Amino acid sequence: MTIHQDPELVMTLQSVIEFIGTFAFALSGIRLAASKHYDWLGGFVCGVAVAIGGGTIRDVMLGLNPFWMSSPIYLLFTFLAQLVVIVCHHYLKRLDNTWFLFDTLGLALFNIAGIQKTLDCGFPFWVAIIMGCITGSFGGVIRDVLLNEEPVIFRKEIYAMACVLGGLVYWAFSYLGLSLYVTVIASFLTVCIIRLLAVKYHISLPTLRDEEDKKE
Amino acid sequence: MTIHQDPELVMTLQSVIEFIGTFAFALSGIRLAASKHYDWLGGFVCGVAVAIGGGTIRDVMLGLNPFWMSSPIYLLFTFLAQLVVIVCHHYLKRLDNTWFLFDTLGLALFNIAGIQKTLDCGFPFWVAIIMGCITGSFGGVIRDVLLNEEPVIFRKEIYAMACVLGGLVYWAFSYLGLSLYVTVIASFLTVCIIRLLAVKYHISLPTLRDEEDKKE
Amino acid sequence: MTIHQDPELVMTLQSVIEFIGTFAFALSGIRLAASKHYDWLGGFVCGVAVAIGGGTIRDVMLGLNPFWMSSPIYLLFTFLAQLVVIVCHHYLKRLDNTWFLFDTLGLALFNIAGIQKTLDCGFPFWVAIIMGCITGSFGGVIRDVLLNEEPVIFRKEIYAMACVLGGLVYWAFSYLGLSLYVTVIASFLTVCIIRLLAVKYHISLPTLRDEEDKKE
Repeated sequence: MTIHQDPELVMTLQSVIEFIGTFAFALSGIRLAASKHYDWLGGFVCGVAVAIGGGTIRDVMLGLNPFWMSSPIYLLFTFLAQLVVIVCHHYLKRLDNTWFLFDTLGLALFNIAGIQKTLDCGFPFWVAIIMGCITGSFGGVIRDVLLNEEPVIFRKEIYAMACVLGGLVYWAFSYLGLSLYVTVIASFLTVCIIRLLAVKYHISLPTLRDEEDKKE
Repeated sequence: MTIHQDPELVMTLQSVIEFIGTFAFALSGIRLAASKHYDWLGGFVCGVAVAIGGGTIRDVMLGLNPFWMSSPIYLLFTFLAQLVVIVCHHYLKRLDNTWFLFDTLGLALFNIAGIQKTLDCGFPFWVAIIMGCITGSFGGVIRDVLLNEEPVIFRKEIYAMACVLGGLVYWAFSYLGLSLYVTVIASFLTVCIIRLLAVKYHISLPTLRDEEDKKE
Repeated sequence: MTIHQDPELVMTLQSVIEFIGTFAFALSGIRLAASKHYDWLGGFVCGVAVAIGGGTIRDVMLGLNPFWMSSPIYLLFTFLAQLVVIVCHHYLKRLDNTWFLFDTLGLALFNIAGIQKTLDCGFPFWVAIIMGCITGSFGGVIRDVLLNEEPVIFRKEIYAMACVLGGLVYWAFSYLGLSLYVTVIASFLTVCIIRLLAVKYHISLPTLRDEEDKKE
């Protein structure tokens, strides 16, 4: 495997996916803000919230400065997403499949980034899995809170659960002593495949039953 | 007093109350999520938010890693509460008085835990009282924000005020030089009694008057 | 210039504006809580959220203890605002122009305080501008989230944008090597003037267009 032998290429690939993910996350926040007629700044803040919100909560809990404070690149990609929404808002819907793909790639990579950063800080694996999940999915929670909606993640999507399962694969593969490359790729694919299957076949978690509900 | 002479028994008692409180707090979050038909993960996140949200905000403000990252026990009790809601959801309502009692015990203990941790960090007493109050009551605020409701704590309940009064008792007893045991027990009982009385006699804080309201 | 030569007078002036700003911010939160008939504690928490929320988020991200934990003065001014709302709620509306002026002065000063604190921590200017904006405007976002409303800042007001422009002026003047006094005063006036003009002439940022909207 060539990629395996070329750490620089791997780093580049990882950066590219990270930028694509940041762009896709920001885009989803700005489009939702647009559907509620927020102004430009409101859209930007919602975009930023989705793109960097999860990672910010993770870093604050780990006792680190939020990652986006070390490089303006994340905000620049949010700016880019904002520009795209303002200029091309009539053409965005046709590309929904593309955004969904980008979003899924971003989710899978953000999950792994959260896991690795937490392990690097010396925390045990169960904390790392939670932090991976927070990195990937809490940006969307912040977005929904800012837009005054019930967080969609708690109702319809298998979003966060895909992160948890990807984290468990990471854990299992590490435990089995497999190489970091294999572990990361397996975890990455797990998140992508679960999310794609869940959306394609409308799989979702069971709903909690209300106490007033009839007996089953 | 035997308890007095047996620090191990005291520690065990404190742990038991802490676990009961965590369970009761988590249960309240998951039941509310169930009443809005959230999915399993949404219920779990709401349960976690109530059980550990207040302590997490406190620890972040104190510059510490959140307490739940040092032991999975808090998440396990949330899992347990989740299981109970899923399996026994038809029988929960009959035990409402039990949950209320657990919740009150948890509130009183979380309040004291927040006060002591803040004092240990070298902050003055007025900060400790605020942190005790945050530990006990901000989990519920996060829950209501996640459920897209107006925080109930700001409207109907004497919840946070009981924490503040328990904190003032802690302060007064410490100031008078009374032993830690007496201080903790007095503060604990203050919170419990105020909350029980407030609910029994429907006592609540005065409401702020709207500026449009008629003269009194 | 006499002020220039008297650092003590400058400090006093700065403190006075800071207290006025804290009072005005707290007042705005408590009045909104009153319009929703929150109880006294709910009003107080909303007031605190506006007055210290932005600075707290800033400090947590900078890795510092929140500023209000070092002195009770900020909470005392919130108490004062609470008292004013409870006692004089019939007369508040007539003074709306005064509150607006106080609020604007507070915004301009909080913005500068956030910029300076961030620069002191060794972060670059673009982070400082963001932190200034967060210090000035995120208290209002927290307030709206607690009141279960869409954050007004994202819809109607030029609030946060005034902070960003004030921050850019700060940056430009520092870059040009002008003295700190000139820089601070220019940034302060920029925020005040933009906000006053925006409200007087109903200037607001463009709104994001919904994807369903007709072509322009």
